[in-house]
Amino acid sequence: MRILAISGSLRAGSSNTVLLRAAAELASGTMDIILYGGLADLPHFNPDLDNGTVALSVRDFRMQLQAADGVLISSPEYAHGVPGVLKNALDWVVASGELYDKPVALINASKRSTHAQASLVETLTVMTARLIPEASITLSLRCNKIDQGEILSDTEISNTLRSGVQAFALAIESRRDEKPVESISSE
Amino acid sequence: MRILAISGSLRAGSSNTVLLRAAAELASGTMDIILYGGLADLPHFNPDLDNGTVALSVRDFRMQLQAADGVLISSPEYAHGVPGVLKNALDWVVASGELYDKPVALINASKRSTHAQASLVETLTVMTARLIPEASITLSLRCNKIDQGEILSDTEISNTLRSGVQAFALAIESRRDEKPVESISSE
Repeated sequence: MRILAISGSLRAGSSNTVLLRAAAELASGTMDIILYGGLADLPHFNPDLDNGTVALSVRDFRMQLQAADGVLISSPEYAHGVPGVLKNALDWVVASGELYDKPVALINASKRSTHAQASLVETLTVMTARLIPEASITLSLRCNKIDQGEILSDTEISNTLRSGVQAFALAIESRRDEKPVESISSE
Repeated sequence: MRILAISGSLRAGSSNTVLLRAAAELASGTMDIILYGGLADLPHFNPDLDNGTVALSVRDFRMQLQAADGVLISSPEYAHGVPGVLKNALDWVVASGELYDKPVALINASKRSTHAQASLVETLTVMTARLIPEASITLSLRCNKIDQGEILSDTEISNTLRSGVQAFALAIESRRDEKPVESISSE
């Protein structure tokens, strides 16, 4: 099971990126969580450029989404909104549809960041992504300077993170089992 | 009176950009509305890069905001959210504070686009910009392919646009008159 993990922050020591790395470690064996590293390389979305000859970085992003069984997003909130750089990535796949029916789980690193999370849910819903509520978790990191070791050694955080990735794996797995039945019944 | 106009769309024929150009024509004589052309040149916001040596494009954006008596924003809605490229520009001035107490008016080209508008209001409010509700207008363009001539010749649209820019000028003007009184009373 291949999961594309997207951090909404470009900061080198971003707690959101660290959370995704920790999730990858906790999920190893069940899911292959790969951190998407191309957010900063995507051009600013321009509908005029959203044609057959999009930038290589955009094609690569779309292919990585297509190849993924699910998408795990962890994002900070900037000025009560979604970071522009993350929304820009989503803007590139609205019309091309790589998130259509794609299982998506959200990690929120702070209970106080409610606006960005709500906006992401709204945008992903209208993009017809398949949000998995039981795999979408909210944590309460004490600060935004935390390393992977600290996350994994904190029982509460690591347990919540583990339960989130397990629920995500389960949702994707049960979906796969459902699919053939659906095809038969629709004949 | 100098107004910086920011279109949330990079599309060459963007109706939001056309609306700002029409607003500039309707306001000529009262306000000097200058279209900001650097949105696509701003790097993706990264807190690590938000230090003393920011990119030239970021410095230029901040200086243009500082030099403006007000900011006029017209933005489309992408997937029920603010276009990433516009939010990215705002992300660059959250900490540096160029929008602090700055008069801002919003143009919404579509009555159906409620989410992006609400998000912009939320973000600008938390950035302590001074939103001018009486200058923030909602239009109902029939399509997003419209030129400046069509806007100016449509009585309803041009009247609404004109009343918006007039209300904006008035709000900025009355503010200027208030300021010395405020300083005296706070002594």
